[in-house]
Amino acid sequence: MGTDKRIWLYDTTLRDGAQREGISLSLEDKLKIARQLDKMGIPFIEGGWPGANPKDVQFFWKLQEEPLTQAEVVAFCSTRRPNKLAAEDPLLKAILAAGTRWVTIFGKSWDLHVTEGLKTSLEENLNMIADTIEYLRSQGRRVIYDAEHWFDGYLNNPEYALKTLKTAKEAGAEWLVLCDTNGGTLPQDVTRIIQDVVTALDIQPDNGSPQLGIHTHNDSGTAVANGLAGVVEGVRMVQGTINGYGERCGNANLCTLVPNLQLKMGYHCLADRELTQLTKTSRLISEMVNLAPDHHAPFVGRSAFAHKGGIHVSAVQKNPLTYEHIKPENIGNERRIVISEMAGLSNVLSKAKTFGIELNKEDAACREILTRIKELEHKGYQFEVAEASFELLMRQALGQTKSFFQLQGFQVHCDMLYGEGMPYSNALATIKLTVNGEDRLEAAEGNGPVSALDSALRKALVNFYPEIAQFHLTDYKVRILDGGAGTSANTRVLIESSNGHKRWTTVGVSANILEASYQAVVEGIEYGLLLQSTIKKPAKSL
Amino acid sequence: MGTDKRIWLYDTTLRDGAQREGISLSLEDKLKIARQLDKMGIPFIEGGWPGANPKDVQFFWKLQEEPLTQAEVVAFCSTRRPNKLAAEDPLLKAILAAGTRWVTIFGKSWDLHVTEGLKTSLEENLNMIADTIEYLRSQGRRVIYDAEHWFDGYLNNPEYALKTLKTAKEAGAEWLVLCDTNGGTLPQDVTRIIQDVVTALDIQPDNGSPQLGIHTHNDSGTAVANGLAGVVEGVRMVQGTINGYGERCGNANLCTLVPNLQLKMGYHCLADRELTQLTKTSRLISEMVNLAPDHHAPFVGRSAFAHKGGIHVSAVQKNPLTYEHIKPENIGNERRIVISEMAGLSNVLSKAKTFGIELNKEDAACREILTRIKELEHKGYQFEVAEASFELLMRQALGQTKSFFQLQGFQVHCDMLYGEGMPYSNALATIKLTVNGEDRLEAAEGNGPVSALDSALRKALVNFYPEIAQFHLTDYKVRILDGGAGTSANTRVLIESSNGHKRWTTVGVSANILEASYQAVVEGIEYGLLLQSTIKKPAKSL
Repeated sequence: MGTDKRIWLYDTTLRDGAQREGISLSLEDKLKIARQLDKMGIPFIEGGWPGANPKDVQFFWKLQEEPLTQAEVVAFCSTRRPNKLAAEDPLLKAILAAGTRWVTIFGKSWDLHVTEGLKTSLEENLNMIADTIEYLRSQGRRVIYDAEHWFDGYLNNPEYALKTLKTAKEAGAEWLVLCDTNGGTLPQDVTRIIQDVVTALDIQPDNGSPQLGIHTHNDSGTAVANGLAGVVEGVRMVQGTINGYGERCGNANLCTLVPNLQLKMGYHCLADRELTQLTKTSRLISEMVNLAPDHHAPFVGRSAFAHKGGIHVSAVQKNPLTYEHIKPENIGNERRIVISEMAGLSNVLSKAKTFGIELNKEDAACREILTRIKELEHKGYQFEVAEASFELLMRQALGQTKSFFQLQGFQVHCDMLYGEGMPYSNALATIKLTVNGEDRLEAAEGNGPVSALDSALRKALVNFYPEIAQFHLTDYKVRILDGGAGTSANTRVLIESSNGHKRWTTVGVSANILEASYQAVVEGIEYGLLLQSTIKKPAKSL
Repeated sequence: MGTDKRIWLYDTTLRDGAQREGISLSLEDKLKIARQLDKMGIPFIEGGWPGANPKDVQFFWKLQEEPLTQAEVVAFCSTRRPNKLAAEDPLLKAILAAGTRWVTIFGKSWDLHVTEGLKTSLEENLNMIADTIEYLRSQGRRVIYDAEHWFDGYLNNPEYALKTLKTAKEAGAEWLVLCDTNGGTLPQDVTRIIQDVVTALDIQPDNGSPQLGIHTHNDSGTAVANGLAGVVEGVRMVQGTINGYGERCGNANLCTLVPNLQLKMGYHCLADRELTQLTKTSRLISEMVNLAPDHHAPFVGRSAFAHKGGIHVSAVQKNPLTYEHIKPENIGNERRIVISEMAGLSNVLSKAKTFGIELNKEDAACREILTRIKELEHKGYQFEVAEASFELLMRQALGQTKSFFQLQGFQVHCDMLYGEGMPYSNALATIKLTVNGEDRLEAAEGNGPVSALDSALRKALVNFYPEIAQFHLTDYKVRILDGGAGTSANTRVLIESSNGHKRWTTVGVSANILEASYQAVVEGIEYGLLLQSTIKKPAKSL
């Protein structure tokens, strides 16, 4: 089945990943994610459990109409119910109706789950495994067998656990996947137990059928290490999810496993070209599931190659190898120098460089910028994420940007009326500003106060700067800075804007959420205008 | 030095942890964290680098005035500079001035860093290690030696790397700490390399001096596994940070390492009583560093023992062992059943139980609740985090809560004037509502529109419900639900309230941020009133 040093990836983002607290996928979301994984070259994509979930039934139907291009989409199901015929089990009918070439069947390895969970005999559980796999084979399906709770089962009753695996092997499963369902197993035990399995079942890695797979969870913080330990012992299928999404503490993170296997251990998982898209895929999928990306994720996180400490910054600039374990470009990530009060002048200088700003450390402007940053950070501004605001601050200090307009003031008025029928809501903003020496007074309505204010501002400016018609806000986040002060605490607003090509983030801080929002909106517009002005070439992606 | 199966924890949250992007600690923060770690029984607490940072100098002075109760606070520093005398090096003067019993000295193990970073000879680097340690010993200090870049250095030039360690040993270091500074090493390599070190340096684990320590980073997602691999091979000091804070992808997470070592591998790290406070400590420290806790963190995360999938929920209720790798109470965490559209009736029923609500699945109210949840979740409400809103919804459906007041409407008006001097800002809210059949019209000002609205609401209600004077808002979070729609997108507001004893979270959703905030504020007040009314006993901590 295998060629040397090939690892088969099996993605379960759509099933196990979707169990993560906070994720709730629509049918459309699932299809979008599946097509993204397919594009990436992941060979097996678990789509869901068609018998248990109507959304999953539709998902497989949609893929029958419009199949994936390279991946095998896999339907997931339990073994047949105790004391029933496989051919008559509605769950198995549903999995056949999914119309996939490959199916994954999970069965019990742990005697406790057989007697306490299924309330059946150990013998009947073996029959259930054998019958189910044989029946699906007879219907032309290829079978992956997930040995649920494998490691706990083996520790508890190794003889019985091995019997379940042998049964699956003899019934014709081509992959035997050892699952650490509760995520409690440590790498040293994974190693030892898989060595036992390889011997007991006479597994020939890279040769013949069945081959071993591994499915791990992160409850002990070792999901990735457990997967690697499996591969070292001859496992050739690694199951996991993008970004490690999954129930409780998540599944093994494919975005961590793949670079470890491919860049460090010399296995082949994805085409090199696809590997360089890993960071992008990770972030795309986090967008699709509507979760903020984990900035500190290994390899693909925004901070994974970010340098903050002074020594690190200067060393990494001499030779990246000194503080980077791999080249970030191999997985499509990039080096970042972080701005913060810990950083000294050297960080400011090197950040300026990435903005294409020439700055001399002897310049008075350089000290001025540093003082201003520290002052603003003290108030709660955060330039680590709002790099556009930071660049504006630098260019203002250096006189490299003009003032596009002067605000005189704004007023916002909101009405909410309850009572019969729907609540009535209205938001109105009035803004007064000076552009090119001309006073403008404009008013606009919106769904809420921030959108009314945003509209009024654009209305006042669009005749002078027609390009702002293309700008739009892509994200809006608010954080309170001092929890104890409740609704009168300082509020930090981060706004991400886009002109269709680039995205940039700006920050505003105020006790008044509307003022903080206004600051960030204005800087978003100013930065967009600056990007398109002649003052500078477009900056690197922000 | 050691008794059997004892592991010495070494916390570096205050130094390496503070390098995390997004963390910025004041002197007060540092002292608070140190005292918390001390209370927890961590034997070594690295306080900072006194020579490099004025805040760290003050930190050690403060601790001289008011020492920790049990822990050793450790000052951190590099070896002396090339070609200088140790006794004259200002960095070493600063570390002595810190007045700690123990000091940690880091030195170079990797020849590349010696020649490229320090720009000195390999021989001089050995002198620097020897001189520095000998000098500090002569000044009465006990020395921990951090072998920076140990694993990379060893892979590159094992002979030289071992020489640096032997030098530190001979100079009198009591601990030799193997650092995976770049976080690129995988567990199988950690194992092999430490076996070599144990042999080459004739280390006797648990007996004599020096002993080995390990310091790992999470760039490969294996920081915890690397620490465990070290302990298996005889390492007796484990360095890490609370919640895994640290530069780039973070340091080894002590909140994961400790339960693995203590509950699974039988080592002793903390008193059992302290171990049951681990979840609390993790969250306290995340509050102190002002970062949202990682809900999916192993052991201590809010989701670590949360069950969402239908099968899991029913099995775990029969026998927790089926889907939980340890008892959550051992580390002070708790089991949670998650509400979401994936969940069926059984989750609603079991959630009701945790609220102390008796619900029968045959009841029409039960179906009604489920339908209402699905409807609201579809609009963007999120009950997974807003359990107080969820409980209110249930009790409303069951007629178990009275309506405390009826809102008729509100108006909010904000003025911002710029121009000479400081910007002038004013926010005014007017609210009209009916309480106990009486109409109330009240107005209030605030720092911003939400605080004005909150004040007006309280003003209108406080005569009827005097207990609300004790309620305050402890957190306020806003998220946009559909990034593409910019400022007119639906906004979800989560508000955490407190009455001084309990905290609870409520949710509001609207395109108008003020209306969403209002919904969440009102539910926060209603829930607080409900808590103190006779309808129910106080619920379990939410």
